[in-house]
Amino acid sequence: MHSTLTPLGDPAAARQLFRGGLRVPTAGWAPGYTQANLIAVPRELAFDLLLFAQRNPKPCPVLDVSEPGQPTTVLAPSADLRVDIPAYRVWRDGECVAETTDVTQYWRDDLVAVLLGCSFTFEQALLAAGVPVRHLEEDCNVPMFRTNVACRPAGALAGPMVVSMRPIPAPLVATAVRVTGRYPAVHGAPVHIGDPAGLGIADLSRPDFGDPVPVKDGEVPVFWACGVTPQAAVVASRPAFAISHAPGYMFITDVRDRTYEL
Amino acid sequence: MHSTLTPLGDPAAARQLFRGGLRVPTAGWAPGYTQANLIAVPRELAFDLLLFAQRNPKPCPVLDVSEPGQPTTVLAPSADLRVDIPAYRVWRDGECVAETTDVTQYWRDDLVAVLLGCSFTFEQALLAAGVPVRHLEEDCNVPMFRTNVACRPAGALAGPMVVSMRPIPAPLVATAVRVTGRYPAVHGAPVHIGDPAGLGIADLSRPDFGDPVPVKDGEVPVFWACGVTPQAAVVASRPAFAISHAPGYMFITDVRDRTYEL
Repeated sequence: MHSTLTPLGDPAAARQLFRGGLRVPTAGWAPGYTQANLIAVPRELAFDLLLFAQRNPKPCPVLDVSEPGQPTTVLAPSADLRVDIPAYRVWRDGECVAETTDVTQYWRDDLVAVLLGCSFTFEQALLAAGVPVRHLEEDCNVPMFRTNVACRPAGALAGPMVVSMRPIPAPLVATAVRVTGRYPAVHGAPVHIGDPAGLGIADLSRPDFGDPVPVKDGEVPVFWACGVTPQAAVVASRPAFAISHAPGYMFITDVRDRTYEL
Repeated sequence: MHSTLTPLGDPAAARQLFRGGLRVPTAGWAPGYTQANLIAVPRELAFDLLLFAQRNPKPCPVLDVSEPGQPTTVLAPSADLRVDIPAYRVWRDGECVAETTDVTQYWRDDLVAVLLGCSFTFEQALLAAGVPVRHLEEDCNVPMFRTNVACRPAGALAGPMVVSMRPIPAPLVATAVRVTGRYPAVHGAPVHIGDPAGLGIADLSRPDFGDPVPVKDGEVPVFWACGVTPQAAVVASRPAFAISHAPGYMFITDVRDRTYEL
């Protein structure tokens, strides 16, 4: 749907393609490697951001934090966080002012980049356990939704939790819980199983981010906390400046997913 | 050894005694409830402290962070963090300038209190699994040691990891690993098992903090990361001001230890 390329298995090679401008959602790319959300804010907001993450660990599991101004991470020493993600969003006063494949021109000396775990990471474990992953079958982005669940505020940051949704056959829901529960660093077990109305989601066919996927007869919509949550906090809280990945277009690290398995 | 009082089982009642001035190590108090380390720093250092915790999750698992100036925590809504810990240390420029049972006079409007998990929390689980806990048997404080393991620095904070030590009978070491591994929020599995020299510890009978305990024939010294580590970072990094608990004299929360069990 998005790409005619076969997703690459090697993280560095995948990042190289993205650095060259390839713009695709990263679900299914570099299977077996950990993927991450990016949220970068000026140093003066960085405490509030770390505190927001500490208070909301399901949507915001911190994997690494860069030194101020340095677009690098221990999770992938050869990577450049300004160009190695397939798509970025640039935020001013809570508005997305640019979506681009290269944020070099927007980067600042005082930016602190926070990398949060991404649920794409546990999808290989789901497949290995026989749990189908619909957006991989459909070759599209995962559907994501703003919810009516408020995060615990932290300083200048507040906002709703965002979730990703995967339709799971009813007999496999328990397996999906068990498998993903072993990966708390990449959102862990679901936050909600079943009726979308319980999260304030009116229509599963109209996600706030990503692509819709069909929920078939006998399947249950299962919702995982999502690392797009800080972007919802940016929209709600309107900090002067931030840079994020675009939902579903993740940073692929060199770290094996099993590293984060309990 | 320290107290002729029978440790109380109720966290609020225990805190009330400490508020009244009782000064005892808290191992064995309020069994079944989570205990926590305190490190409070001015707001301007709070990002570095949270980042230090994120980069050193074994010694510094964050359980809660207070609002600046507010000596309160969601972990025990009725508690006052300035008086409810049996003993505190006040730090100026990396020197301990006071050890006291009440830090009300030292508290500041810009202090951010960080509560970190404490290994006393998993001792009930060890006992339940048949693993003896020597400092409980001896009715003394746990022995703690500075190590030669450097923490990952964060901003203005750097320093060595501190560990607590429990002698475990050789056949029960695996059980101790398995049981404590289920509690990562209170330091989790050991960081080192066996030869103290591997951590740069010259003499187990001379702990840097707490009390010595005998290691008997057939027992192995087992070392867990310890929430005194931020105090070692204060000594090494010499920030202008900080307040901590005194090692082994912990904050007892209202949160059941099983809350943090995986």
